[in-house]
Amino acid sequence: MEKEALTRLHHGRVLSMDGPLAVTEDEVWVRGTRICYVGPLPETLPAFDREIDLGGNLLMPGFKNAHAHSAMTFCRSLADDMPLQPWLFDHIFPLEAKLTPERVCAFTRLAILEYLAGGVTAAFDMYYHRPEGAACAAQQGFRYVLCGMSGTPEQVEGEYTELNALHPLVSLIPGFHAEYTTSVEEMRVVSELVHRHRAPFFTHISETEREQAECLARHGMTPTELFDSLGLFDYGGGGYHCCHLSDHDMQIFRDQGLFVVSCPASNAKLASGIAPLRRYADAGIRLALGTDGPSSNNALDMFREMYLAAVLQKLLCHDAAALDAETVLRAATVGSARAMGLRDCDVIAVGKQADLIVIDLDRPSMRPIVNIPQNLVYSGGRDCVKLTMIAGRVLYEDGEFHLPDSPERIYAEAQRELQAMLGR
Amino acid sequence: MEKEALTRLHHGRVLSMDGPLAVTEDEVWVRGTRICYVGPLPETLPAFDREIDLGGNLLMPGFKNAHAHSAMTFCRSLADDMPLQPWLFDHIFPLEAKLTPERVCAFTRLAILEYLAGGVTAAFDMYYHRPEGAACAAQQGFRYVLCGMSGTPEQVEGEYTELNALHPLVSLIPGFHAEYTTSVEEMRVVSELVHRHRAPFFTHISETEREQAECLARHGMTPTELFDSLGLFDYGGGGYHCCHLSDHDMQIFRDQGLFVVSCPASNAKLASGIAPLRRYADAGIRLALGTDGPSSNNALDMFREMYLAAVLQKLLCHDAAALDAETVLRAATVGSARAMGLRDCDVIAVGKQADLIVIDLDRPSMRPIVNIPQNLVYSGGRDCVKLTMIAGRVLYEDGEFHLPDSPERIYAEAQRELQAMLGR
Repeated sequence: MEKEALTRLHHGRVLSMDGPLAVTEDEVWVRGTRICYVGPLPETLPAFDREIDLGGNLLMPGFKNAHAHSAMTFCRSLADDMPLQPWLFDHIFPLEAKLTPERVCAFTRLAILEYLAGGVTAAFDMYYHRPEGAACAAQQGFRYVLCGMSGTPEQVEGEYTELNALHPLVSLIPGFHAEYTTSVEEMRVVSELVHRHRAPFFTHISETEREQAECLARHGMTPTELFDSLGLFDYGGGGYHCCHLSDHDMQIFRDQGLFVVSCPASNAKLASGIAPLRRYADAGIRLALGTDGPSSNNALDMFREMYLAAVLQKLLCHDAAALDAETVLRAATVGSARAMGLRDCDVIAVGKQADLIVIDLDRPSMRPIVNIPQNLVYSGGRDCVKLTMIAGRVLYEDGEFHLPDSPERIYAEAQRELQAMLGR
Repeated sequence: MEKEALTRLHHGRVLSMDGPLAVTEDEVWVRGTRICYVGPLPETLPAFDREIDLGGNLLMPGFKNAHAHSAMTFCRSLADDMPLQPWLFDHIFPLEAKLTPERVCAFTRLAILEYLAGGVTAAFDMYYHRPEGAACAAQQGFRYVLCGMSGTPEQVEGEYTELNALHPLVSLIPGFHAEYTTSVEEMRVVSELVHRHRAPFFTHISETEREQAECLARHGMTPTELFDSLGLFDYGGGGYHCCHLSDHDMQIFRDQGLFVVSCPASNAKLASGIAPLRRYADAGIRLALGTDGPSSNNALDMFREMYLAAVLQKLLCHDAAALDAETVLRAATVGSARAMGLRDCDVIAVGKQADLIVIDLDRPSMRPIVNIPQNLVYSGGRDCVKLTMIAGRVLYEDGEFHLPDSPERIYAEAQRELQAMLGR
C-alpha cells in the first residue's frame, strides 16, 4: 500500500473550534485525509511531502452548509422580487421539469466552485437525481451529505444502502421534502427505514406560517408533532428553516436532541420570517446554518448566513446583545457538521478529517486583529478565503481551483444547459 | 500643459446606470479624470496610453458610500454583541478621546483599502479631525465628501471654505452630528451658513425610536421638523439612517427633495430597526445607501448594504416583492452620488468623472449570466471586484493596491496605533 502523503500547515494562527474559542500558533499536520498532529513545533521534524506556509493567516475548520439545493444555481437571478407562489409555480417548477441527471451535474459543479471559493467544505443537499449529483460531487472531491428518498420500501432501502456505500465523501441521511408534499403513507415508509437503520431524519419544517397552519388544519398537529408521532425523530435529526416552531415543537426538538438548521438569507428574501434562534438556543436546542438553494438566497455563502443569523436576531429581539458571534460561528462549523452526521469533520484535532480552510488576514476587512472570531462573523467574506482543503486535498488556493474541469468549462456548460432549458 | 492620458476600456459589458437599466458592449474611453467616449467601436482608433481589456467582465459606476465614519476601523470587533449604551459609553467614547489627527489618518487609510477592494469610489464621511482625514484621503487618491462642522460662525465659514478648496477629490457639505448632541444655537450657526452658500444639509435623523421620542419631548417636534423649522433643509440635503420617520417627516423629505441615507447593516446590528424604504420610495423620497462606521457594521461593504436593503424590506413588508434589485442598485450608485453632491460621478456618460469599477463575472456567484443587476445585488460580493478606478486612476486591480503606502505598512500602523490606544 502506498504511503499516504504528509502535509505540514505551519507559521499561522489556528482556530480549532475544539473546546473554548482560542487562537493558537499550533502546527497542524495532515496524513492522507486526516489530521495527524496539532501542537507546538516539535524538536525534530519528519519529512513532509508538502509544506504550506500560512504566513500568519488563520487555519480553521471549513464551513458546512447544512441545507442546500445546490444544483439550483440555474435559478440564480431568474425570478427575484416576487411573491412565493408565482415564484414557485410559474418559474421554478416548470424549469425543474426539464432537469436531467446531466443538467443536475452541470449545475452542481457550478455550486461546488462557489462552495470552495467561499470556504465551504461540505453540503447537506436535497434535490433531484441524487445518485448522479452525489457521484458528481465526489468526482470533484467535494463532501456531500444527501437528504431525501422516495418510493417503495425496497426502493428507499436500496437508495439508502447504495448512496451510503457510493464513496467516502458521500453519505445519505433519511428525509423527504416536507409535510405538505408527502403523504402519511410515504412518511411511514421513511420511518420504517429510520428504525431499521437507527438513523436520524431531516426535512423542511415550519418554514412559513402558512405551512404550520395548514398542517395543523390537515392533521391536528404541527409538522414537528406529526413527524414525532410517526417515530421519525426516534434517532435524532432535525428540521430545515424552523421559522415558526410552537412551544411544544421546541420541547420536542430539545428532548430529541434535534437540530434547527436555520437559513436566514432565504427566509428573509422570501419574507418567510426570522427564526427565533435566541429562544431556541436558550431552550437548549442545537443550531446549524445553511444557505438553502441559490434560487431564494441567491448565494451559497456561509459568511452571509453567519452575519444574518446574528444581526436578524438582534432586530427580532430588539436587543443588540442577542446571539453573539461565537454562537453563530459554532453553528456554521461544528453545529452544521454534527447535524450532517460529519462527526469527524467538525473541529481541528488529531484523527479528524482534514476539511480545513485558510482565512486571509491580510484583507482590509480582517484588520485590525483584535478578535478574529468576531472579524469572521461581522466583517469576513468570501474574499478572505485563501485556501480550501477537503479530506486532505487542496481544491482551491489563491483564487485557483484544482478540479477535474476548469471553471471556464463549468461556466460554459451551466450557461449552455440553462439556455437550452429556457428555450433561448 | 501636459496632455492628459487616454485610457481605453473595451471588450467588456457596460452597465452605465444612465437611463433604463441595460447592459451594452460599448467601449468606454477616459481622458485624464473624465469619461470622453461611450459607444460602439469606431472605424478608426486614436493612440491610447493604456488599454484595459475587460475580458467580458462588467464595467459600471463605483459604489458610493453615503454615510460613514471611516476612521472607526479601529473599533472593528472591539465591542460587538452588546446594548447601545454600554457600547457607546464604556467602549467607543473613551477610545475616541484618545484619537489624534495622525491616528485618524492611520485608520482612514485602512478604511480606504477596504473601500477600494469593495468597489467603493467615494465616501460621505462624518468624523473628527476632518481637515487631516480629508487630506489623507486625497493623498491616497480617494474621493471624500465630508459632513460636519462646529464652532463659531467664523470657524464654520472657515472650515467650509477651506475644505471645499482643499483638493479636487474633497468637498464638504454642511451638517452636524445629531439633534441630541447639538444645541439649537449651534444649529442656527449651521443654518446661517447653509443660507449664505445655498448649500444642502445632512445629519443623523431618527436612527432610533428613542431619538425620535426624546426630540419630541424636548422640542415638541421631530428632528426632521426641528431642522426644517430652522431652515436647514431650504437647499436640500437629507438624513442618515431615518429608521423612524413620521408621516409628516416623510412629507418634508418629499417636498424638500431630501435623501434618506439608509444604513441597514448598522441598524440591524444595533437593533435600531428597519427603515421602511418601500414606503419611502412609494412616497417619492430619494434613496441612498451607506455603511455607517465599522464599529457598528462591521464592514465597509456596499454589497452587504444592497443585499440587506432589499431583503430586510421583504421581511418588514411580509412581501417577497418589496423593494427590487434595481431600486437598491440605483440607491447604492446614482442615489448615493447625488446625495453626496457628486453629480458628475453618478453614471457612465461622456463628461462624467471616471469613477469606475470592473466586476469579475468569472466568479462562481456571478454565474450563470441571466440578469447581471440581480446578480450584483443578490449574489455579488467584494470577491467580485476586479478593478477600482477613481478620477481616471486605477487604485486597485486584481487584488493589488496602487497607493502611496503598501497594505502591509497600513495594517501595521493601524495595529500599532490601536494597541497604543488600548494600552496594550
